[in-house]
Amino acid sequence: MARIRRKRYHPPGTQPGTLVAHAEAQGTPVRVRAFRYDAGRCEERDVPAAELPSLSTPESGVLWIDVEGLSDPAVVRVIGERFGFHTLALEDVLNVPQRPKVEWYDEHLLVVLREIRHPEPAEQVSFFLGDRVVVSFQERPGDCFDPVRDRLRMGKGRIRSEGADFLLYALCDLVLDAFFPTLERLGDEVEEMEERVLVSPVPESFLAIRRLKRKLLEVRHAVWPARDALNLLLIEEHALIRPGTKVFFRDCYDHTIQLMDMVETFREMASGLVDEYMSAVSNRMNEIMKVLTVMATIFIPLTFIAGVYGMNFDTKASPYNMPELTWAYGYPALMLFMAAVAGGMLYYFRRKRWI
Amino acid sequence: MARIRRKRYHPPGTQPGTLVAHAEAQGTPVRVRAFRYDAGRCEERDVPAAELPSLSTPESGVLWIDVEGLSDPAVVRVIGERFGFHTLALEDVLNVPQRPKVEWYDEHLLVVLREIRHPEPAEQVSFFLGDRVVVSFQERPGDCFDPVRDRLRMGKGRIRSEGADFLLYALCDLVLDAFFPTLERLGDEVEEMEERVLVSPVPESFLAIRRLKRKLLEVRHAVWPARDALNLLLIEEHALIRPGTKVFFRDCYDHTIQLMDMVETFREMASGLVDEYMSAVSNRMNEIMKVLTVMATIFIPLTFIAGVYGMNFDTKASPYNMPELTWAYGYPALMLFMAAVAGGMLYYFRRKRWI
Amino acid sequence: MARIRRKRYHPPGTQPGTLVAHAEAQGTPVRVRAFRYDAGRCEERDVPAAELPSLSTPESGVLWIDVEGLSDPAVVRVIGERFGFHTLALEDVLNVPQRPKVEWYDEHLLVVLREIRHPEPAEQVSFFLGDRVVVSFQERPGDCFDPVRDRLRMGKGRIRSEGADFLLYALCDLVLDAFFPTLERLGDEVEEMEERVLVSPVPESFLAIRRLKRKLLEVRHAVWPARDALNLLLIEEHALIRPGTKVFFRDCYDHTIQLMDMVETFREMASGLVDEYMSAVSNRMNEIMKVLTVMATIFIPLTFIAGVYGMNFDTKASPYNMPELTWAYGYPALMLFMAAVAGGMLYYFRRKRWI
Amino acid sequence: MARIRRKRYHPPGTQPGTLVAHAEAQGTPVRVRAFRYDAGRCEERDVPAAELPSLSTPESGVLWIDVEGLSDPAVVRVIGERFGFHTLALEDVLNVPQRPKVEWYDEHLLVVLREIRHPEPAEQVSFFLGDRVVVSFQERPGDCFDPVRDRLRMGKGRIRSEGADFLLYALCDLVLDAFFPTLERLGDEVEEMEERVLVSPVPESFLAIRRLKRKLLEVRHAVWPARDALNLLLIEEHALIRPGTKVFFRDCYDHTIQLMDMVETFREMASGLVDEYMSAVSNRMNEIMKVLTVMATIFIPLTFIAGVYGMNFDTKASPYNMPELTWAYGYPALMLFMAAVAGGMLYYFRRKRWI
Amino acid sequence: MARIRRKRYHPPGTQPGTLVAHAEAQGTPVRVRAFRYDAGRCEERDVPAAELPSLSTPESGVLWIDVEGLSDPAVVRVIGERFGFHTLALEDVLNVPQRPKVEWYDEHLLVVLREIRHPEPAEQVSFFLGDRVVVSFQERPGDCFDPVRDRLRMGKGRIRSEGADFLLYALCDLVLDAFFPTLERLGDEVEEMEERVLVSPVPESFLAIRRLKRKLLEVRHAVWPARDALNLLLIEEHALIRPGTKVFFRDCYDHTIQLMDMVETFREMASGLVDEYMSAVSNRMNEIMKVLTVMATIFIPLTFIAGVYGMNFDTKASPYNMPELTWAYGYPALMLFMAAVAGGMLYYFRRKRWI
Repeated sequence: MARIRRKRYHPPGTQPGTLVAHAEAQGTPVRVRAFRYDAGRCEERDVPAAELPSLSTPESGVLWIDVEGLSDPAVVRVIGERFGFHTLALEDVLNVPQRPKVEWYDEHLLVVLREIRHPEPAEQVSFFLGDRVVVSFQERPGDCFDPVRDRLRMGKGRIRSEGADFLLYALCDLVLDAFFPTLERLGDEVEEMEERVLVSPVPESFLAIRRLKRKLLEVRHAVWPARDALNLLLIEEHALIRPGTKVFFRDCYDHTIQLMDMVETFREMASGLVDEYMSAVSNRMNEIMKVLTVMATIFIPLTFIAGVYGMNFDTKASPYNMPELTWAYGYPALMLFMAAVAGGMLYYFRRKRWI
Repeated sequence: MARIRRKRYHPPGTQPGTLVAHAEAQGTPVRVRAFRYDAGRCEERDVPAAELPSLSTPESGVLWIDVEGLSDPAVVRVIGERFGFHTLALEDVLNVPQRPKVEWYDEHLLVVLREIRHPEPAEQVSFFLGDRVVVSFQERPGDCFDPVRDRLRMGKGRIRSEGADFLLYALCDLVLDAFFPTLERLGDEVEEMEERVLVSPVPESFLAIRRLKRKLLEVRHAVWPARDALNLLLIEEHALIRPGTKVFFRDCYDHTIQLMDMVETFREMASGLVDEYMSAVSNRMNEIMKVLTVMATIFIPLTFIAGVYGMNFDTKASPYNMPELTWAYGYPALMLFMAAVAGGMLYYFRRKRWI
Repeated sequence: MARIRRKRYHPPGTQPGTLVAHAEAQGTPVRVRAFRYDAGRCEERDVPAAELPSLSTPESGVLWIDVEGLSDPAVVRVIGERFGFHTLALEDVLNVPQRPKVEWYDEHLLVVLREIRHPEPAEQVSFFLGDRVVVSFQERPGDCFDPVRDRLRMGKGRIRSEGADFLLYALCDLVLDAFFPTLERLGDEVEEMEERVLVSPVPESFLAIRRLKRKLLEVRHAVWPARDALNLLLIEEHALIRPGTKVFFRDCYDHTIQLMDMVETFREMASGLVDEYMSAVSNRMNEIMKVLTVMATIFIPLTFIAGVYGMNFDTKASPYNMPELTWAYGYPALMLFMAAVAGGMLYYFRRKRWI
Repeated sequence: MARIRRKRYHPPGTQPGTLVAHAEAQGTPVRVRAFRYDAGRCEERDVPAAELPSLSTPESGVLWIDVEGLSDPAVVRVIGERFGFHTLALEDVLNVPQRPKVEWYDEHLLVVLREIRHPEPAEQVSFFLGDRVVVSFQERPGDCFDPVRDRLRMGKGRIRSEGADFLLYALCDLVLDAFFPTLERLGDEVEEMEERVLVSPVPESFLAIRRLKRKLLEVRHAVWPARDALNLLLIEEHALIRPGTKVFFRDCYDHTIQLMDMVETFREMASGLVDEYMSAVSNRMNEIMKVLTVMATIFIPLTFIAGVYGMNFDTKASPYNMPELTWAYGYPALMLFMAAVAGGMLYYFRRKRWI
Repeated sequence: MARIRRKRYHPPGTQPGTLVAHAEAQGTPVRVRAFRYDAGRCEERDVPAAELPSLSTPESGVLWIDVEGLSDPAVVRVIGERFGFHTLALEDVLNVPQRPKVEWYDEHLLVVLREIRHPEPAEQVSFFLGDRVVVSFQERPGDCFDPVRDRLRMGKGRIRSEGADFLLYALCDLVLDAFFPTLERLGDEVEEMEERVLVSPVPESFLAIRRLKRKLLEVRHAVWPARDALNLLLIEEHALIRPGTKVFFRDCYDHTIQLMDMVETFREMASGLVDEYMSAVSNRMNEIMKVLTVMATIFIPLTFIAGVYGMNFDTKASPYNMPELTWAYGYPALMLFMAAVAGGMLYYFRRKRWI
């Protein structure tokens, strides 16, 4: 069973704002891409490490710095210094996984989300929104941002005419949209499980339910704080987010509520599964027990009767000693009597609906 | 078992505000009707697709555009453009099912409700309230709006003398009223189940309880957010809803609270049903086990005694070897002894109230 | 088992504010009494239907219109028209049972409470507070208002010197006070049940617990919203309720909190009863099973031994074939051996505290 | 089992503000003591009933009227009239037990607390704080106020230099402090129970757990509302409580939070005890069942084999009829075979870790 | 099992603000160290008891008084007097354990945290923040503050250039960071337990789960109020905490949320463990029962048949009396019949998947 990934905290005592790469990030290649666009054009290029210090806020339009891979803390530090991001915020980028959150700093805004796209492992995505600048950090190459990249390149929709806040929205929206197929899949598994549990209530089913519950818990831990964070974004006033863009973030927020609805519904169903498993197990046990009960209850008196006529009382010693044994129809009569006893009991059980 | 209908999200990466018809909506015929009324008259007509672009806000009175069927996104788009509705709001109309909600835009208001009218499947109903305009969208033909249409046509009540906000109220009220018979029916089923579960605690009952709980959950998911949405409508000030109409929306809100009360009462009763089922199953099992126990406990010692006198000790080898076998009244005496043992045990069990 | 009484909603689509009598109200006689009083005098008279339209707000003092029976919607309509009550509020009077609530209208206040006085069925009591006027509506003749009527007639206490708001308080207080003996009785039943469940855990006890829980749920549904309504009354400013009277409503509110405390305590105890019932059932089952276990465990090996010596090996064919059968003390020795086995097991079980 | 003491309400219909002694209070002797002090001196005397009407607010310093015993409503009424306390507040003093609360009246403040000092029964303590006056009412003689009386008499600490609000604080603090040893004791009982339940899971343990849970519930009902009341005292501004004294009330409030923490921890532990009891009962049952199972499973086939060789087939009629019976080593061989069967099964059970 | 450490309250009646050492603190050596630093230098020295009264707020820079050991109340009193700390606050330092909290006094701030560093017992850490002064109190020598001491001595990071509020932050951060390895360890134990419970569901596992749950409860009691306290610190304005430092406290607050997330996840998992234990126990029991059932069900009819042919009916008395006994192939035929019965039942059980 997959371990719940836990925050790999810095060793206690680490100085606040220390930027070190996460152990698991070691070896991931780092790629930095810059998109510089305005309504009329979009210029895209890879930024080698050496050129990072020359990055600067564009005079007009929007600059998106798109970083994949967190193995090199220097990249994070240089970018942070260029745009004046707070060291605590930069630390949160490297020190994954953080709880999804939105944090306001004087000149910029940090948005941390968790991306869960089946079948890949969960990944933290961090966004900085500054003046005309968005910087996004991902743990690994491979993401769900291609639709936005395409829209930027081809000038589809309104994205190139809007500001950096709209780009932030578009990226957050993609991260949240990616939850839907994952949840849909988990929902299918829950429903499948409901059939399976009743048919074959084996201990494996119990483990499978536990695994399912844990996955749902993981999604919940990713979505619930994201909902709170987006709500905060809607309530608080901040110069970097224009009112017109808030309508879009409200839509995002709405998606998180729908996600929570789904998660909670599935969680309730999964909890019900444990009851159903228990009920199915005991139903099965009961069925077995009933067979034993019926068998035993029928044969116990019969065996006793047979035992009685197996006693060795001396029939010659006295006429009171088991005279039935010497009757001409003793045996057939006893057999009929036994059959009657068994039949009577079967009839009684059937009438009681025990069999 | 019916699947819980889940949001058929757009494929992740879809541009925000993209209007595409829902897969399940394909093939539903689209019908657009316009009601133009004021205190003195009501003019009703079907609007063919070609005439949609010429729709416009009336100079006086109220215009209700009543759309059934969502298979043609063009219809939604054209109407949205004519009255200046936000594309995200229009997207919510098509992208069913949305969670019930109220959303304010600068110039209009979106109300999304879910209609659950037994025996039809749940359906999303969306309302736009603009200046002197109400637009309602339904997923399928067939609805609960006829009482309002009749009141409009015949000028019954105050509806024609009131504004668009009152029409919105009247329509919402109908959607919510339709829940009552559905819930009443579910309540009947819960109470019926309570009788049945005690009489025949079969696994089918367990499944039926599960089905019932799921239906109640579905209603809850439809009513709970509607309650929150209506509360929001009452609290927030908006030029489109006059204070005099708020009293009516408060009545609506009151209905949602009553619905929630009923849903929660039935849910509590349904939860109790699982306990009762479990209790009934174990009662039944106990009854069976008790019969076995009593049978076995009575016959086990008797069988042993019979076994003893079935032993083949040589009575001739010594006078100590089972002399009882040769006694004149050995057999009848043993039979009486056995009867006494059985009777004693029966008396003991009866006194202990085990049988 | 008594059905939980559910709101008999109007048929969906009924025009808002339609006043029709509730089906169950048919045939209840209607009686309208008017009390016109001030500090100096109290004039009481029955008002026949024909005189209702001539009712009017008194110039000074307070007018209490006390209506019993809701079978005639005309009475409600006429009174409502005379004092300018909102039609939605009047509808709530007829459309019983409503959830207890307080509703402010511009010129008047509606208070709806539920009266549960054992052994009578629950009844809705609705109060309108206007300027110098209180109108009370009850479903049936027979109520808990006599103490107030007496105090009015005899000028006891401050009630005649106070305004209409104090009369409203006095009536609400009586409705809430009537809960205490009912709850006291339910509390007695819960405690009685606690004894009974342990002594005789029969399925009837289970049903009785369920009935008790349902009654407590009914009281809770009557008290909980009343508490919220009274709290609202305390918080909100309204010209009709003077600050001096608020202290009395606060006392009322305090009573609802005490009632909720009692209800919740009894509910917790009733929930514990189910556990105790289950525990008592399984204790009883265990006791029975233990007897079987001990009986079977003792006799199973003994029966086996007897079976062995019932085998028919030919003792003459060889000296190895069951020579015990021909020993002089074979039988007594075996009997002693069996007694030793049984005694040993009994000792073992006793030491293990199984018997 | 001790009954949960319930509010002995006035008979429904009692006029608000009626002062009658509680039935249980009858016969308790009433003692009124007055402490008149300022920084320099403290004068203490018993006030006979006749002198009560001459009590008055001191010109300087603080007056504490310390009343024990509530059997005489006249005492409460006279004191209330002298200092202008509201009749509803006085009613709360007599009509015990009230839920702990703080109530502001225009000129004074009412604080109701419940005192639970093991092994005495719970008692209501009511305090009135007026201008330079504190009046305390207790149900019975004997209390926890002696430390304050001593500090007043001997001028220890700051109490004599502070105002009436500080005296109120000092008395409340004593009432709350008295909970700690009681809770400590309940905590010890819970921990003791944890050991006992595993060792001897008898039904008496179940009853003891129930008793413990009920006691904890009682403490919770005394502490929880006290916490809310003290919080209210901290939040609201009132001329009678000076800011400097609020720091002390905050300390009191802190104690109620610690008490709640303890209560909730013990309640959680006590709830766990029921699970442990159930688990211990079923463990014990399982142990017994396993012995039966193993015994039966071993002897059932052996008994069958013995039964086979007890059959009476005529060995002379044919050589196929049980020739084993006449073999020279038939019996010993069968005995060995049976021992092998039994040994094999024991080995199998041991390997499966069933025994 | 370790007892939950409970507040060793003062004896009820103790005067508020009385400073006495906790019974458990007796004998712990007291060590007071003073760090006086500013951006340029850091001077560290041990302060003997005699010099405590000469301590004073520095003119510039920051003074940290670092106290280990609470056995001498005089030390606490003298320091409190020197810097004007409230006696109630000082009492909280000595009267351990307090619930973690933040308390504002006019001129200073008290922060109480609980430090849980495996494998040491929990310890209370109290901080006073005054103007340019931080005083920290710990119960025992040995702590997690060395990283800060080193940073102060070596001038690493910004700590020496910041104010007293930053020092407070740095110390709180260390206390909270120390929870992470402890929780990580508990998480490992929970996961280990999950494997173990399924493999060997012995009563010891049940006790181990209980122990685990209790430890998690202890951590929860330490973290939950710390979270609330830090939140309060963020919300309220106070001259002693500069806005720039609040960003750091927000980071601290964030850590407590992460800790709570971990605690709650582990608690949910631990609760699931009880279900799994119960399920594993009953699975194991079921397995045993099934073997008995199958054995018994197969042999019961066979034993009956053998019993029948052990009856002693006189075959010579009549040709109807058990003629099978004298048939040539009677015995082999019966054996085959018995084998067929047993085989048929085995086949039936296998098909039903009972074995």
